[in-house]
Amino acid sequence: MDIVEGLLKGDRRALARAISLVENEDSRKRETLQQIYPHTGNAYIIGFTGSPGSGKSSLVDRIVGIMRGEGKKVGIIAVDPTSPFTGGAILGDRIRMQEHTEDKDVFIRSMGTRGSLGGLSRATRDVVQLMDAFGKDIIIIETVGVGQSEVDIVKNADTTIVVLTPAGGDSVQTIKAGIMEIADIFVINKADLPNADRTRTEVSVMLDLNEKSSWRPPIVQTVTLKNEGTDILWQEVQGHKGYLETEGLLSSLRLARAKRDIEDHIEHLIKSRVWDQVIGTNMFEKAIKQIHNKETDPFSAAQSILERISLDNKD
Amino acid sequence: MDIVEGLLKGDRRALARAISLVENEDSRKRETLQQIYPHTGNAYIIGFTGSPGSGKSSLVDRIVGIMRGEGKKVGIIAVDPTSPFTGGAILGDRIRMQEHTEDKDVFIRSMGTRGSLGGLSRATRDVVQLMDAFGKDIIIIETVGVGQSEVDIVKNADTTIVVLTPAGGDSVQTIKAGIMEIADIFVINKADLPNADRTRTEVSVMLDLNEKSSWRPPIVQTVTLKNEGTDILWQEVQGHKGYLETEGLLSSLRLARAKRDIEDHIEHLIKSRVWDQVIGTNMFEKAIKQIHNKETDPFSAAQSILERISLDNKD
Repeated sequence: MDIVEGLLKGDRRALARAISLVENEDSRKRETLQQIYPHTGNAYIIGFTGSPGSGKSSLVDRIVGIMRGEGKKVGIIAVDPTSPFTGGAILGDRIRMQEHTEDKDVFIRSMGTRGSLGGLSRATRDVVQLMDAFGKDIIIIETVGVGQSEVDIVKNADTTIVVLTPAGGDSVQTIKAGIMEIADIFVINKADLPNADRTRTEVSVMLDLNEKSSWRPPIVQTVTLKNEGTDILWQEVQGHKGYLETEGLLSSLRLARAKRDIEDHIEHLIKSRVWDQVIGTNMFEKAIKQIHNKETDPFSAAQSILERISLDNKD
Repeated sequence: MDIVEGLLKGDRRALARAISLVENEDSRKRETLQQIYPHTGNAYIIGFTGSPGSGKSSLVDRIVGIMRGEGKKVGIIAVDPTSPFTGGAILGDRIRMQEHTEDKDVFIRSMGTRGSLGGLSRATRDVVQLMDAFGKDIIIIETVGVGQSEVDIVKNADTTIVVLTPAGGDSVQTIKAGIMEIADIFVINKADLPNADRTRTEVSVMLDLNEKSSWRPPIVQTVTLKNEGTDILWQEVQGHKGYLETEGLLSSLRLARAKRDIEDHIEHLIKSRVWDQVIGTNMFEKAIKQIHNKETDPFSAAQSILERISLDNKD
């Protein structure tokens, strides 16, 4: 299969085509992912998340510059769960990444919503695997926003960076339950704005209240435009990587991810078995009408449908 | 069963207890929901969503005042997908709803994250059913934020209102793909602020670009503090309700909801059957390790696990 072959040989067009297979749910997607799987597990995966306007993209740009200076090959997946656009066509991304678009060792791909959010998180994971097998040393998952969807997407990362700004009040309000827990490093970007120190203190206090693990997320102040603090951020990323490695946590993290992947595939496989036998059948249509007419309730209808289909598929 | 009996007789304490059963995943939850189901389908369900700070809660307060003036019995479910608090304990809600807390015909319940987001959306649906069977004429689902989780929660509503403010740029940026599609009515609240008209124009342009259905969401400007525009909003809600009814769409909407409910229950039932047989077993632990060691890939592991368990349960 030449896409896989090309990808493993480092052909950028093969990588681009493989990513398209994944995004388009092409019939060759599954086989491709199975074939490249033994070649994954070498890349280090870094997640960046933060509100729109936090300057996250410019920060990523700077960090990529540092990584490139060290000779690392970098893959970037820019995910916007609220955008219907996909396939690298987001103009803004192209412009902002100008600095690296000429660089053959930086591969950038934008992804927008395709169907469900679970789908987007899965697609992100699959694209990470493709870039990993392709030979990237570092893969950056960059996502806009601080909602549950971003949390799900960023769960694919080894080190997660949450980018805040000192902008009045809002910044720390966004560190809601889910985000607080996923951050391995906090960045206060635009730290030359007023209140940067206050924001730092607020984050610090929140960390005091939430101390659970042996890793306390460092807080790094950066000014992207002046390229201040980005080298410190890069050091902190390496510090976190070192921590994960020496504590054996990188391995546990990836075991947990393997577990989640199996669970995810099992659910997906079963769902299709179920829906193949249910959707569009008379049995199903009848049940919907009965519920609508209050002759039965949704739970009882579900139970009775499950009694009438066969889920075991041992052929 | 006296909770159900009490609830159907209009006992507020019984309703509160039934909601707690649902929230706590009590063993009596399923039975309760099955018993009240025939008594549902009478309430009209209105969803309010919008960013924090859009003045949504005060707006709901005002609208509830108008509904009460017309003698409608109202239930309010205030959902915060990012808050770990639940059970009506959110102080802010209690304070802001002061106007109606003395009113026996207004029932308010706050709900925060309990486990997964899918769980929260399901719990919202269940609480709607309880309030509906209890005899509420109108049920308001109010949710903070404009992410996917809010979209899922608000899908339980017949009419969905998206609340924006004229605040510089951000307001219209938040009308991302998902939100654009769920809005039946747009409100520009705090319309006495500068740029209210510009925001209106921007929303209008977006609507021009997205025209798909025969319903064009009206845009209502409100100033909650001065109680301006709220009566128009109420008229627009009734206009949308009338539209759904005359076009036969309310019925389709609810049929679609019945369909989603069955699907949801089927998935839930199957998942528990699967996980009962998989989680914690040697087979599963072995598969995780094999994936980790690249001896197999997650998809193949999932397939082989599915071949070894039995999902049919026809006892």
